[in-house]
Amino acid sequence: MSTKKTTIVLFSGDYDKAMAAYIIANGAAAYDHEVTIFHTFWGINALRKQDGLQVEKGILEKMFGWMMPRGAEKLGLSKMQMAGFGPQMIKHVMKKHNALTLTQLIELAQEQDIKLVSCTMTMDLLGLKPEELLDDVQYAGVAAYLGDAEQGNVNLFI
Amino acid sequence: MSTKKTTIVLFSGDYDKAMAAYIIANGAAAYDHEVTIFHTFWGINALRKQDGLQVEKGILEKMFGWMMPRGAEKLGLSKMQMAGFGPQMIKHVMKKHNALTLTQLIELAQEQDIKLVSCTMTMDLLGLKPEELLDDVQYAGVAAYLGDAEQGNVNLFI
Amino acid sequence: MSTKKTTIVLFSGDYDKAMAAYIIANGAAAYDHEVTIFHTFWGINALRKQDGLQVEKGILEKMFGWMMPRGAEKLGLSKMQMAGFGPQMIKHVMKKHNALTLTQLIELAQEQDIKLVSCTMTMDLLGLKPEELLDDVQYAGVAAYLGDAEQGNVNLFI
Repeated sequence: MSTKKTTIVLFSGDYDKAMAAYIIANGAAAYDHEVTIFHTFWGINALRKQDGLQVEKGILEKMFGWMMPRGAEKLGLSKMQMAGFGPQMIKHVMKKHNALTLTQLIELAQEQDIKLVSCTMTMDLLGLKPEELLDDVQYAGVAAYLGDAEQGNVNLFI
Repeated sequence: MSTKKTTIVLFSGDYDKAMAAYIIANGAAAYDHEVTIFHTFWGINALRKQDGLQVEKGILEKMFGWMMPRGAEKLGLSKMQMAGFGPQMIKHVMKKHNALTLTQLIELAQEQDIKLVSCTMTMDLLGLKPEELLDDVQYAGVAAYLGDAEQGNVNLFI
Repeated sequence: MSTKKTTIVLFSGDYDKAMAAYIIANGAAAYDHEVTIFHTFWGINALRKQDGLQVEKGILEKMFGWMMPRGAEKLGLSKMQMAGFGPQMIKHVMKKHNALTLTQLIELAQEQDIKLVSCTMTMDLLGLKPEELLDDVQYAGVAAYLGDAEQGNVNLFI
């Protein structure tokens, strides 16, 4: 095996799971892995821009757009959600320990040339448009994911 | 690497996660991977026949049988469940985009000779009988799973 | 490939998911894999000692300590939680079938020399101290995880 590859499917839209994905990804990139994060289903919400853009959409697509969290810092927790209290506690404790926020972890991933991919099938289904997502995100389907995954051995579904 | 192998543990009983598992599996089969989906815990519910069979069972096993979703189209979502409203919205949007339902994805998997395995230990625990599951499902334990998984590098737990 | 390696990230604090992780890990160890379970985020709760120790902590850390389940047998289920009724039903049915509890699966893992690792970054964040966790647990970060994971092909995130 020449270059090492880490390929992560980020399916989850939970703040803590997205953090875990980006921490592993950034660690792998620091150890010279070629890293791809393939965002699908709720995982795409981590890539949304935080300011609401005006984009032409159908009603159902607008509803999804309203109901789903807009960007990394709006995601909830997988556990201890506690009416929104949990995420605040976690963010407070992260700040105290100078831990990187999810937004900062995503920026670091971009600086380390981690390939951030958004699943085109999900974008179609949920009515999300490329202009709503962060710049430098790539768009691809399951074939491209498999092309990356089959070349490496650290393959995770998060 | 001669034949490529994709082996997925489907633990989750969520409609969206099962969809993700079957989309990746069908994609991998289309790219000539040997693919196994090992259904364990709540993931077995995706394989249940939708019509209630009369099977001899103890009381506890009957309770599990009643409480757990009977078949692919009865599964809920991992997010946006919203009192059952979420799954309807997703199915509506899938229909609009001519996306395959989970039932159709499972049929496609069977046509593509993807090996669908149900975990015998879980079947014992939850009191599920082979006659309650789809035809052509295989029955095996963790040893068989590992036998498949250790021969390939796309290994996911969903 | 000489020695086979199985490396599991246990992120989840759910009883059923932790069971699945430990069943796969014990199976892999029985088939001569070198096995590591890297416990991170809520997954560390499975390693907590069940009796409350008096440890010096700040207020926020104490709150996390109180709110999170103390040890393997206190974890809830990922599905069918039903106000605590679900876990009792599962444990009842496990006892009836002489299935190993999570506590017993963890003991078996230790007997089989499975490497149990607790994520130092999470311990810092949630204010957990080594004396609160089981003996013989190792402490490491994402670099050590990647060092294990990149040498094997059965890599799961649970």
